[in-house]
Amino acid sequence: MWQVNKKIKVLGLDIGGAHIKYAVAQNQKALLKRKIIPFEIYRTPKKLAPLLKAICKEVKPSAIALSMTGELADVFVTRREGVKFILNAAVDAFGGNAINVLTVKGSFVSVSVAMKQTELVSAANFMATVLYTASIVDNSVVVDIGSTTTDILPVINWSPAILAHDDLGRLKSGELFYGGYLRTNASSVLQEISIGKTKVGTCPEFFATVGDAHLYSGDITAKDYTCQTPDGGPKTKRGAGIRLARLILSDPQTLSAKEIESIARQIVKAQTEKIADAIKKLIVKRKMQNAKILLTGAGAKVYRVKLARMIKNPFPGKVNGIKVENISPASASATKLLSAYLGAE
Amino acid sequence: MWQVNKKIKVLGLDIGGAHIKYAVAQNQKALLKRKIIPFEIYRTPKKLAPLLKAICKEVKPSAIALSMTGELADVFVTRREGVKFILNAAVDAFGGNAINVLTVKGSFVSVSVAMKQTELVSAANFMATVLYTASIVDNSVVVDIGSTTTDILPVINWSPAILAHDDLGRLKSGELFYGGYLRTNASSVLQEISIGKTKVGTCPEFFATVGDAHLYSGDITAKDYTCQTPDGGPKTKRGAGIRLARLILSDPQTLSAKEIESIARQIVKAQTEKIADAIKKLIVKRKMQNAKILLTGAGAKVYRVKLARMIKNPFPGKVNGIKVENISPASASATKLLSAYLGAE
Repeated sequence: MWQVNKKIKVLGLDIGGAHIKYAVAQNQKALLKRKIIPFEIYRTPKKLAPLLKAICKEVKPSAIALSMTGELADVFVTRREGVKFILNAAVDAFGGNAINVLTVKGSFVSVSVAMKQTELVSAANFMATVLYTASIVDNSVVVDIGSTTTDILPVINWSPAILAHDDLGRLKSGELFYGGYLRTNASSVLQEISIGKTKVGTCPEFFATVGDAHLYSGDITAKDYTCQTPDGGPKTKRGAGIRLARLILSDPQTLSAKEIESIARQIVKAQTEKIADAIKKLIVKRKMQNAKILLTGAGAKVYRVKLARMIKNPFPGKVNGIKVENISPASASATKLLSAYLGAE
Repeated sequence: MWQVNKKIKVLGLDIGGAHIKYAVAQNQKALLKRKIIPFEIYRTPKKLAPLLKAICKEVKPSAIALSMTGELADVFVTRREGVKFILNAAVDAFGGNAINVLTVKGSFVSVSVAMKQTELVSAANFMATVLYTASIVDNSVVVDIGSTTTDILPVINWSPAILAHDDLGRLKSGELFYGGYLRTNASSVLQEISIGKTKVGTCPEFFATVGDAHLYSGDITAKDYTCQTPDGGPKTKRGAGIRLARLILSDPQTLSAKEIESIARQIVKAQTEKIADAIKKLIVKRKMQNAKILLTGAGAKVYRVKLARMIKNPFPGKVNGIKVENISPASASATKLLSAYLGAE
């Protein structure tokens, strides 16, 4: 039994490949703070520990609830190596004692257990999301749209109803859709672009991202474009236009602004359709036609209106008093750990 | 009028992004030699001039016929910069006087003209191929399957019947298909992979190439895999298996050899279908159902049998005494320049 101590402050940390997300929970699950920090782990892995140290210095947590996917970055030869690197950075920043690492089964383990069973904690952050959602709503599909991937997680009768815990299984079950609002290669999303009445094959190179299409269309700003551009060029409408035109080996001198706008719209439409299809497939498969769809993650605001046109299902802003946008792995694992400390479970 | 000099020896040089191709022509168009040298210009641009110098030293040509596409490599900020770099390397290796640079209109210009009008000579090598083919056969579609792209070039009534000379125009006209046998991102070729009875979306990252699928299936050897692997890993069946499994976030420990073999086969089939569709589309559009299809380029031998199953059209090995495999930009511009010197045109 945990001793009730309302002064306990938990830092939920989700270490992804392109962002560090954190949330602070204290006092009966109330979230004090949520923050997303762009951090591409494969570019500057050595800066991870100092960054975590700075967060801890600011938040002064009593304990940390840690989840991750950043170990999948290709700077690490194996997942095992990546998990260990991230764990070491966390210990370096905070000491090992009060770090609780989330597993793919939804429990917390100590750093030393996580070090030994790295497969247990690798890419476990989706578990936090679905567990937390199951604690606040009876039936729902949580759709967490990230920069690179989208989790589509069913909750049935107050329980996480996920079918798979590993990546391949999750791709198969439809609970992981490998596509997001930002980093995704635009040529993979759209095979053919219409220019006037002609269809032109998009070149299968990494010339432009879905983020470029959103930036050009005004769906996001440069500040939201938190990953690097494919050509290292600027995060401006002009820069995005150059990259989008390159998809068909062209440039803004040859194509009109209207034509580039049309390319951007076609890419956004295709990605929206892909996400909508993934959601609809899971809903049909799991017979969840009446469940609420909870749209969360950094891409949620970009796709809310666009998806609503394709999916006849309201996307509530709140469920049982909780803001849906607050459903994130970092918040979820922070509140879950706090509940454990407070003796609520 | 050129003075006939049968001792003139022409070096045809085609400088691509991943290969230097050269051919030597002398004595009434006879080809003395053809060679393909793997050379990724974006990795070691400074080694281009020494390499060209070594070729010139070995061949001792009287003149050079130069074509290029290597200027499109992203080590060059603009095409203009790339063209100038390649021209300078050629001058460095051979001196500027006897270098003849092929234009997108099929004529040769001097280095100084090419330096000023870089757009005239950028990505012009397809012109050599179609002009040469038009000189040996009345009606045909030349299909030049390269590591990255495939040219599909119609010849009608002994004339190049191409509709476009710039990249976007060529994509629109169907004369350029942006896909090849080697470098192409496998996830762009195949959107969904069947594993048993389940379809899994391929991850839109650069995890594996079409070359990995060919290597795993035994269509090509490590020697034929002339570009770098996506993960920098080895050009072995095992290395290719790791990369192919990664397309669905898996590995050879989780997937069986049979399942990876099936992934490889699905990718090869999808790319063969894409090439076949591109050829068939052009044939229908140009009403060339009775024309011979001449399959050439480094990928020709990989796809000959596979394409024959999809296209009911013989792929002759020779036309009018010329080996079809010898139809290449380097051979074509070499023999074209020799013809000019010999007064044949």
